[in-house]
Amino acid sequence: MRSRFNDPTFDSTAQPLPRFGGATFALRFRIMRFLWTICWALLAAWTPSPLSPWRAWLLRRFGARIDPTAIVRSSVKIWWPGNLIMGKHASMGPGVICYNVAEITIEDFAIVSQRTHLCTGTHDVDDESFPLKSRPITIRSNAWIAAEAFVGPGVIAGEGAVLGARGVATGKLDPWMIYVGNPAKPVRNRKRPAGE
Amino acid sequence: MRSRFNDPTFDSTAQPLPRFGGATFALRFRIMRFLWTICWALLAAWTPSPLSPWRAWLLRRFGARIDPTAIVRSSVKIWWPGNLIMGKHASMGPGVICYNVAEITIEDFAIVSQRTHLCTGTHDVDDESFPLKSRPITIRSNAWIAAEAFVGPGVIAGEGAVLGARGVATGKLDPWMIYVGNPAKPVRNRKRPAGE
Amino acid sequence: MRSRFNDPTFDSTAQPLPRFGGATFALRFRIMRFLWTICWALLAAWTPSPLSPWRAWLLRRFGARIDPTAIVRSSVKIWWPGNLIMGKHASMGPGVICYNVAEITIEDFAIVSQRTHLCTGTHDVDDESFPLKSRPITIRSNAWIAAEAFVGPGVIAGEGAVLGARGVATGKLDPWMIYVGNPAKPVRNRKRPAGE
Repeated sequence: MRSRFNDPTFDSTAQPLPRFGGATFALRFRIMRFLWTICWALLAAWTPSPLSPWRAWLLRRFGARIDPTAIVRSSVKIWWPGNLIMGKHASMGPGVICYNVAEITIEDFAIVSQRTHLCTGTHDVDDESFPLKSRPITIRSNAWIAAEAFVGPGVIAGEGAVLGARGVATGKLDPWMIYVGNPAKPVRNRKRPAGE
Repeated sequence: MRSRFNDPTFDSTAQPLPRFGGATFALRFRIMRFLWTICWALLAAWTPSPLSPWRAWLLRRFGARIDPTAIVRSSVKIWWPGNLIMGKHASMGPGVICYNVAEITIEDFAIVSQRTHLCTGTHDVDDESFPLKSRPITIRSNAWIAAEAFVGPGVIAGEGAVLGARGVATGKLDPWMIYVGNPAKPVRNRKRPAGE
Repeated sequence: MRSRFNDPTFDSTAQPLPRFGGATFALRFRIMRFLWTICWALLAAWTPSPLSPWRAWLLRRFGARIDPTAIVRSSVKIWWPGNLIMGKHASMGPGVICYNVAEITIEDFAIVSQRTHLCTGTHDVDDESFPLKSRPITIRSNAWIAAEAFVGPGVIAGEGAVLGARGVATGKLDPWMIYVGNPAKPVRNRKRPAGE
């Protein structure tokens, strides 16, 4: 499943310049991303909601691993398709920011609601050169990330977990548990479907 | 005051498909909403700030009950005017998202500041079919919802209540009380005007 | 360093009309701001990332005091350049809202990340006329305001302080301390660079 485009940070240590506003990624990868941005703007960003299969097809051309039944709204911002994995009926709502410097996985039937920010990147605040640090995000099956939430680097949202609207998650979310607030805290269990 | 357009959820139970990314609303209502979106884009979204009376007039054509002195900025996103009620000098600032799947009422002199999200819709997380649930929002007179706040389904903000910037309210806000945080918590009383 | 444009609130008390949706600022200043908005849209908002020095030059023409090495992304929204001060390698990321009704200072090497809202204005909720109140914001050197945070009126972020993603600060942030949450709370010390 890995390709040379799946680890965009590979030579970032050669240019530890974020503190000076310098580029974090290699030129070649930046060109690839530029092409991706142009393609999405021309071929997908204006397409009506029901054309999700077309958008999924386009994402696959750039390395995404997406089930044809997955839903990706036209107004999402995907940083790099090569770092995106979506299962059956997984969905990303309008205006979602998918900042996938590291891999983002959204499993079967998991829902990421409108204007949520999935953010895999941060900086090492204890290192003077302020290097980019990235960790993958995993949203397990049947989980729901509600509107305008924030999911930070390294988060694993367990199966059926719920992060309430505007919730901010930076750690692990237990399966079938409901979280709200900033920082997110558990409030109660979610009812599991029969047979689980 | 009720019309057939005031209860858009009326046949949503006939198509309980959100879990599969299906449409929640009936085709006819979706066409009405499409027309509304086009009309606002063509006739209001680009209009300068002082033309608020014109925008209020346009909203009334689609079923809104708005006092002529109410202020609606051109960059607001109103889901459906038939579910909007605004009193004298009530206002919605730039970029407010008025997701009024159920009725949203903003009473006299109540202020909803920039980029706030008034959100009447959620989903029943304990029901396997994940149906849309909606509850009305009421902002009573002289209340202030500050910048970039979030007001969830069923919230009643009492007279003169204040929800601080970025505050997230999901329950009742007591009159003349100031709330901040996510989730919002009361911090102190607001001084009432003389005679109240 | 002060000019007649640095204190835009000077005659706001003459028109205490925000409760009625009236204009808070004098006509002449509003014309200046209108010109500024047009200039930024025509000459800067569409410019590519590396042209930061050009954007800094343009900001200086409208009264900003910005070091040539400072980074200002083209998608920032600056309310009024006359109230902006940025040091060496200070930066404002994509989509930052710089609502500088009062002065905003971002010192050397301080970083304000994407879509953060620096908000100098609020209203006096205990005064019936609801007047605008504004207080300056200072981000000291090497501080980091992470993505989508909110920094309220009067905040002083000490040297090297960190406000985590989506954090909401309304008071003082101690130097070399890390804060997260809404409202923001200290979580741990940040490692200081050698020699500090």
